[in-house]
Amino acid sequence: MTPFDTLIKNGLIITAVDRYHADIGIKDGRIVALGQGLEGADEVIDADGLWVMPGGIDAHCHLDQPLGDGAVMADGFHTGTRSAACGGTTTVIPFAAQQKGQSLRAAVEDYHRRSEGQAVVDYAFHMIVTDPTETVLKEELPALIEEGYSSFKIYLTYDDLKLNDREVLEVLAMARREGGMVMVHAENADCIAYLTELLEAQGKTAPVYHGEAHSAIAEREATHRAISLAELIDVPLLIVHVSGPEAIEQIRWAQGRGLRVYGETCPQYLMLTAADLDQEGFAGAKCVCSPPPRDPAAQEAVWQALESGVFQVFSSDHAPFRYDDPQGKKLHGEEAGFHHIPNGIPGLETRLAILFSEGVVKERIDATRFVALTATNPAKIYGLYPRKGTIAIGSDADLTLWDSAARMTVRNAALHHAVDYTPYEGLELTGRPVLTLCRGRVVSRDGEPTAAPGHGRFLKCDKPQPARPRGAAKGF
Amino acid sequence: MTPFDTLIKNGLIITAVDRYHADIGIKDGRIVALGQGLEGADEVIDADGLWVMPGGIDAHCHLDQPLGDGAVMADGFHTGTRSAACGGTTTVIPFAAQQKGQSLRAAVEDYHRRSEGQAVVDYAFHMIVTDPTETVLKEELPALIEEGYSSFKIYLTYDDLKLNDREVLEVLAMARREGGMVMVHAENADCIAYLTELLEAQGKTAPVYHGEAHSAIAEREATHRAISLAELIDVPLLIVHVSGPEAIEQIRWAQGRGLRVYGETCPQYLMLTAADLDQEGFAGAKCVCSPPPRDPAAQEAVWQALESGVFQVFSSDHAPFRYDDPQGKKLHGEEAGFHHIPNGIPGLETRLAILFSEGVVKERIDATRFVALTATNPAKIYGLYPRKGTIAIGSDADLTLWDSAARMTVRNAALHHAVDYTPYEGLELTGRPVLTLCRGRVVSRDGEPTAAPGHGRFLKCDKPQPARPRGAAKGF
Amino acid sequence: MTPFDTLIKNGLIITAVDRYHADIGIKDGRIVALGQGLEGADEVIDADGLWVMPGGIDAHCHLDQPLGDGAVMADGFHTGTRSAACGGTTTVIPFAAQQKGQSLRAAVEDYHRRSEGQAVVDYAFHMIVTDPTETVLKEELPALIEEGYSSFKIYLTYDDLKLNDREVLEVLAMARREGGMVMVHAENADCIAYLTELLEAQGKTAPVYHGEAHSAIAEREATHRAISLAELIDVPLLIVHVSGPEAIEQIRWAQGRGLRVYGETCPQYLMLTAADLDQEGFAGAKCVCSPPPRDPAAQEAVWQALESGVFQVFSSDHAPFRYDDPQGKKLHGEEAGFHHIPNGIPGLETRLAILFSEGVVKERIDATRFVALTATNPAKIYGLYPRKGTIAIGSDADLTLWDSAARMTVRNAALHHAVDYTPYEGLELTGRPVLTLCRGRVVSRDGEPTAAPGHGRFLKCDKPQPARPRGAAKGF
Amino acid sequence: MTPFDTLIKNGLIITAVDRYHADIGIKDGRIVALGQGLEGADEVIDADGLWVMPGGIDAHCHLDQPLGDGAVMADGFHTGTRSAACGGTTTVIPFAAQQKGQSLRAAVEDYHRRSEGQAVVDYAFHMIVTDPTETVLKEELPALIEEGYSSFKIYLTYDDLKLNDREVLEVLAMARREGGMVMVHAENADCIAYLTELLEAQGKTAPVYHGEAHSAIAEREATHRAISLAELIDVPLLIVHVSGPEAIEQIRWAQGRGLRVYGETCPQYLMLTAADLDQEGFAGAKCVCSPPPRDPAAQEAVWQALESGVFQVFSSDHAPFRYDDPQGKKLHGEEAGFHHIPNGIPGLETRLAILFSEGVVKERIDATRFVALTATNPAKIYGLYPRKGTIAIGSDADLTLWDSAARMTVRNAALHHAVDYTPYEGLELTGRPVLTLCRGRVVSRDGEPTAAPGHGRFLKCDKPQPARPRGAAKGF
Repeated sequence: MTPFDTLIKNGLIITAVDRYHADIGIKDGRIVALGQGLEGADEVIDADGLWVMPGGIDAHCHLDQPLGDGAVMADGFHTGTRSAACGGTTTVIPFAAQQKGQSLRAAVEDYHRRSEGQAVVDYAFHMIVTDPTETVLKEELPALIEEGYSSFKIYLTYDDLKLNDREVLEVLAMARREGGMVMVHAENADCIAYLTELLEAQGKTAPVYHGEAHSAIAEREATHRAISLAELIDVPLLIVHVSGPEAIEQIRWAQGRGLRVYGETCPQYLMLTAADLDQEGFAGAKCVCSPPPRDPAAQEAVWQALESGVFQVFSSDHAPFRYDDPQGKKLHGEEAGFHHIPNGIPGLETRLAILFSEGVVKERIDATRFVALTATNPAKIYGLYPRKGTIAIGSDADLTLWDSAARMTVRNAALHHAVDYTPYEGLELTGRPVLTLCRGRVVSRDGEPTAAPGHGRFLKCDKPQPARPRGAAKGF
Repeated sequence: MTPFDTLIKNGLIITAVDRYHADIGIKDGRIVALGQGLEGADEVIDADGLWVMPGGIDAHCHLDQPLGDGAVMADGFHTGTRSAACGGTTTVIPFAAQQKGQSLRAAVEDYHRRSEGQAVVDYAFHMIVTDPTETVLKEELPALIEEGYSSFKIYLTYDDLKLNDREVLEVLAMARREGGMVMVHAENADCIAYLTELLEAQGKTAPVYHGEAHSAIAEREATHRAISLAELIDVPLLIVHVSGPEAIEQIRWAQGRGLRVYGETCPQYLMLTAADLDQEGFAGAKCVCSPPPRDPAAQEAVWQALESGVFQVFSSDHAPFRYDDPQGKKLHGEEAGFHHIPNGIPGLETRLAILFSEGVVKERIDATRFVALTATNPAKIYGLYPRKGTIAIGSDADLTLWDSAARMTVRNAALHHAVDYTPYEGLELTGRPVLTLCRGRVVSRDGEPTAAPGHGRFLKCDKPQPARPRGAAKGF
Repeated sequence: MTPFDTLIKNGLIITAVDRYHADIGIKDGRIVALGQGLEGADEVIDADGLWVMPGGIDAHCHLDQPLGDGAVMADGFHTGTRSAACGGTTTVIPFAAQQKGQSLRAAVEDYHRRSEGQAVVDYAFHMIVTDPTETVLKEELPALIEEGYSSFKIYLTYDDLKLNDREVLEVLAMARREGGMVMVHAENADCIAYLTELLEAQGKTAPVYHGEAHSAIAEREATHRAISLAELIDVPLLIVHVSGPEAIEQIRWAQGRGLRVYGETCPQYLMLTAADLDQEGFAGAKCVCSPPPRDPAAQEAVWQALESGVFQVFSSDHAPFRYDDPQGKKLHGEEAGFHHIPNGIPGLETRLAILFSEGVVKERIDATRFVALTATNPAKIYGLYPRKGTIAIGSDADLTLWDSAARMTVRNAALHHAVDYTPYEGLELTGRPVLTLCRGRVVSRDGEPTAAPGHGRFLKCDKPQPARPRGAAKGF
Repeated sequence: MTPFDTLIKNGLIITAVDRYHADIGIKDGRIVALGQGLEGADEVIDADGLWVMPGGIDAHCHLDQPLGDGAVMADGFHTGTRSAACGGTTTVIPFAAQQKGQSLRAAVEDYHRRSEGQAVVDYAFHMIVTDPTETVLKEELPALIEEGYSSFKIYLTYDDLKLNDREVLEVLAMARREGGMVMVHAENADCIAYLTELLEAQGKTAPVYHGEAHSAIAEREATHRAISLAELIDVPLLIVHVSGPEAIEQIRWAQGRGLRVYGETCPQYLMLTAADLDQEGFAGAKCVCSPPPRDPAAQEAVWQALESGVFQVFSSDHAPFRYDDPQGKKLHGEEAGFHHIPNGIPGLETRLAILFSEGVVKERIDATRFVALTATNPAKIYGLYPRKGTIAIGSDADLTLWDSAARMTVRNAALHHAVDYTPYEGLELTGRPVLTLCRGRVVSRDGEPTAAPGHGRFLKCDKPQPARPRGAAKGF
């Protein structure tokens, strides 16, 4: 019997802190040896000249999520995780969304049905809490956290999702008591509604006005508010998909005061601007997402915040709607007005290559920061570490081998999601994942999928932090 | 016929910018001459050795305001304005409060009934907007602003008063369109309710817990939010009764970014702390007001913000409830829990003397700043300037003559409000108003009232700013 | 005998705080009456439709200042003050500069010789301290301060002027002990020298490179340093001619911490940019001044700081060198390299009109702020108040009557300095001073001088602040 | 032949990012294998229950450094590195100090003579640049950087060490051109001298006044200045031994603006305050170091900056002077005045245990941050990574095995330096290093040294950053 199932030889291993040449020995899907000159495996992969990094964790994506308005997400767990795998991602954390009036457990069970046997890479669930009843807060969530669903997202906007401040406080207090992790979509709903109505009254309904309705002030306000509520409760908080300097200023201010406030950003805030919403005809709808892409100065601020450590997590916020589809971006037709357009853009497969090329190759961030942002930090923040997110003895053999010099051009035709466009069509990149393993099994090779649905397993998440009794700062 | 009705001779005139010796000639209640050696008057007042300053404007006080819970304000327009006059104040701006469901005009009319023939000094009304219906926003408020009711207060807390963010935006947009001035009580209602319930569940119901329930974080959050909403609409905003460094930080940040955000503070935030809520038995109830007095470091921050120009207005927030009274502080009895205690403390008569003694005499602020904070700035911000708030040709002869060296001890027995306590009992002060004129008529002398009810007249306020069409920044 | 020498009737009087219609009675050069319907004067000036403002105080200008390198200032006290008078300025405060090795008293005496009988408007002297020997600090300066020379400027750059940090501390400590006021030119000399040599080594010697050599970082550093040294000593400080957001950030930060740090800016930082240094041939030399004009964003920051109160003083920094003159800008020829060009631009006559038109007329600042910045604040900061800087009983009748709607185009041919250019040639402005009085005497009318040399008198300045023993904060 | 020389079995490995159980295989002094169930070694160390961390790197310590004033450092390379080894440190980076007028190469050669054959653990040299002549900048430093001396410290204070701003710029520009790393001691020399003289003139010469002379304002000013100069040149900079919130504010501000500014702090700023300088008799001299320990609020700020990532490096600044010794703290006698006391406190051996106990055990920082601060970050910043500072294949087997629960009390009698005191006498700690290996060889066991002088080797440092031509930002 060979000591290893698989050996990855001679690669340049990069973790969130280290960079060294070694062989990796894999047994039963886990990393069991790191060393020089390892031998004895059924399968030997030559990684000479390649970078070996932890498989990406996409901690913010939407797959097969039921929506109230008739829109249908283009990707379920099969196409979504297949696309992820081809892009170098080995774990995804989509959302099990509670409908108002629904129990959270029902949402989780529904989501298990949707994902069962479908996934190509591993997956966990964040929960979306939209109806924090006493039962949800006192019974369901504590039990679900114990069972491995330890993070949840709350919204400060969208009529069918948003919580009021009191509900936010209750959710945060529960997270504190139980050791859960709260993510927040921080935009002020009333500001957006006010501006939307004002724009509509002026006949400004084209996609480009989506960006004006979602003012950066509305994002900043909600960010400050969410931080304040978390400060009151004394519990960590993660601000998702931060789009520009206004919200960044608030997060940096909070971090500077010692608060445990984390930030996430996404490729769209590095690569797109409001100009992408202002395309001929309805095409700007392809880039309608919230918060919206802003301007070049905002991109620069987002890069700077990535470099200087304001952000811990880099996710795709993949929310897949087909453009030319009555269940997608054209749900209500091209004339219906920007605020009827399903929000979201695809990005599971391009996330890593974009950050690699624009960030690492262009030397805005170094390779260890790349690993931290795309794998290690999300694993730690969401309770998947040390199983996921690093290259260390005992961790799952989730690995992506990168050719750091390969050139590629993004073409939707070459992607593996079920969306009919990518906002990055034609983008030229340097660096690409050439081989990706999930628990030791090759799930993509040269950008093509190699694993069947069902290889991906559901992951229970640990509590990201110790549970602490009581529910507010200052000894209440 | 003498050229003047009254001459004030030889005083040291102090305005918000100037300091010089001159005589003041008064005719028909207005200042008609400033000069040296003026002569020819029916009445000559010798101000030699005295400081002559504009009569105080108390831009934030509550008189005879109907309350939903059965509490009754101790002061109506007679005792309230009498008390004001004895303290050197010649104009008060109390609140005509809309009840939910009521029309604003009805509130204003009711308030006129309450004040008619009662006042000793002049008065205008702020309106409190609690129910900004379309009729209120589109018809009543524009008309009322034209008629001289150009400022209004909104609340972010108190169940029967608070507006949601959308309502705040609509009120701000109306203010922009019509040229009105918005004041905001900035505390986060949900935070306070959450903390209150938590404290009550722990049996912490004594008055001292009022301060814990009204967390400085709740004040800071609401301050940032109100600033953001006003920034979105691009309209000035005044944050009332700021209690400490957290909210100050937000206001200074806004001012530094060029926003027209004004700030007000009150004597209680200079002189009281949470310790004053923590008295034996129920006595802490005397100092229950919102936001609550905080700690010595907060006092220091408030002084520093007064000195460095963060605050423009210094008001009393006089909200008069008798302590030992079933319609006052003991409305629900001593055991009922802090959040059932009527909020507010008296302060109309002591406001100026406290700031004079602690601020001017102790050289924390200079005398011109004193005038600006207590008279000139509120007159300008609320549309009473140049009629009120300064010593200039054509302005009303509202004057207070100060003996800057006189010593006094605050005793409730010597005050003229109808409240049975002052939180400053026993406080030793230097400097006192020895003669106060309102429109040329002496309304108090040596701290005793000299004018009858009815001398005070209702004042129509001008629009504090030009009306601007449309309702949001960035050209909407 | 008429009660007044002169009456100014029916004007709109504007002070740093007030705005009202009244007549002004002048006797023996001072304002002795303000009122309605004043009568009885030898001379009556009809100001109907005009704004009557305090005559401008230009607290930062250079006249007939001896220079070490052979350059000669084009304006002495006659042409300089004549030019000032025609622009609405009634007081100038140029500099008596100590040469290294020279006594300060000698410098003051020399300066009196240069100014004696020359001036058209009143003048005081700032001293420039370049050699703070023990004699200077312990004997000369205390005596001179007592004698009415109470403000002094120090430099952190220019080889023949700059002080090291220890010298700065000694000067600040002396100012604290004696009640003097320190102004500082805050640029880091070593940074500028380093960049200059680097640029020269690259053959970059054209005037435009002056702006690159005088980096905004060098200005910010020196500003922070000067503030820190003044904080250590616990004494007020005024940062002169601030050019952009970097130094503004430091001043605002200091003010927000409660430090008595004042700021001054000048027209060139509102109206010029680096592009003005980048003209064909040598013409950019006309706009060589230090710190240099920067970019449109810096202009915006300077406007915002004017509006929000960061700056207290608006001066010209008039430093007059003829362009086409071997004793002026071409001292060393056109090929000599930017750092050999005499530094400075003319501005005494255009200062007020530029701020009026671009600030007041365009509603970036209001008229009272205009008065504060151009007259009242400098009078107070430099110990000339209440004699100068306001319209009040007892003050000198230094007045400027403005036609707020008149249009004018800046033409050097129409100016009255002895410089052969203005950087603002062709600038179209709204508003102009039509009549200017200094101590009751008309010194200019319709932009033309009407007073002879010798009308202007030397002014002794009071101590701007109380003298305080010892020399550092924290009770040393 | 066994595959390994040494095996460390069953430990909990902690790196700057990871935490996992594994065996470590060591061959020829390097880590060659990480895995589970490794076998085959000459020596097997059972680490069951222990934490295995990278050996500490003390990047700031002074050993056998010649001093101009007759003081003698108590520790040379033998006692210093022995002490380090017993405290868990496996690499030290002391300073080769240039004397004014001396060549840097001579300093380096002298320092090699002093260290040759003495050290127990490995060592590199920082250079101290006190005389940056053209030869030093153009010839010596570029050559020395190539040879492995790639970091250097400059001083803004101390008469015999300090550089002026121009010299600082030249050193920074050289660092940019050659890829070197600059550390700066940031205190304003003139401020300290000024305050020192003031204190002395008042007879305040006791050790406690050392703290007053070294004002936090002087530290903040120099920090801002150093940052500004580095920003001008566009080169990284590390601020050493930061003592409190004033300097931290500047560093955080710089980092927030995207500048590559690093910060270091030391145990004394966490554990001591000004009170430790205020001991009976002369004993406060034991804690005289620069900057001085400040107050509890400063300690809190330093902890917060450690937690929130402002600091990258935690060093001892070991500067060993015997207390009761005419060549040590009493060099000039007890009466000579604080500024004659040799500056510095010992700390090589206690550094790690203090941060472990106060930081990790008390949960102010987590264990991975501990490793980053004490080993990985300094290795990276100073060009020793990946040879030093981590646990990875190919790295030197520099390891410390910690018993995280062991209690210990600091006693100087138990320490191994040659100093006759520790400022932490009696301090009770949790956690201690029980076994330390340097390149696979056990150098201490249970706090006692086990290796002979000469085991430690000199380390050449790589360039911490790529060399970049030219010498200032913005494309000069």
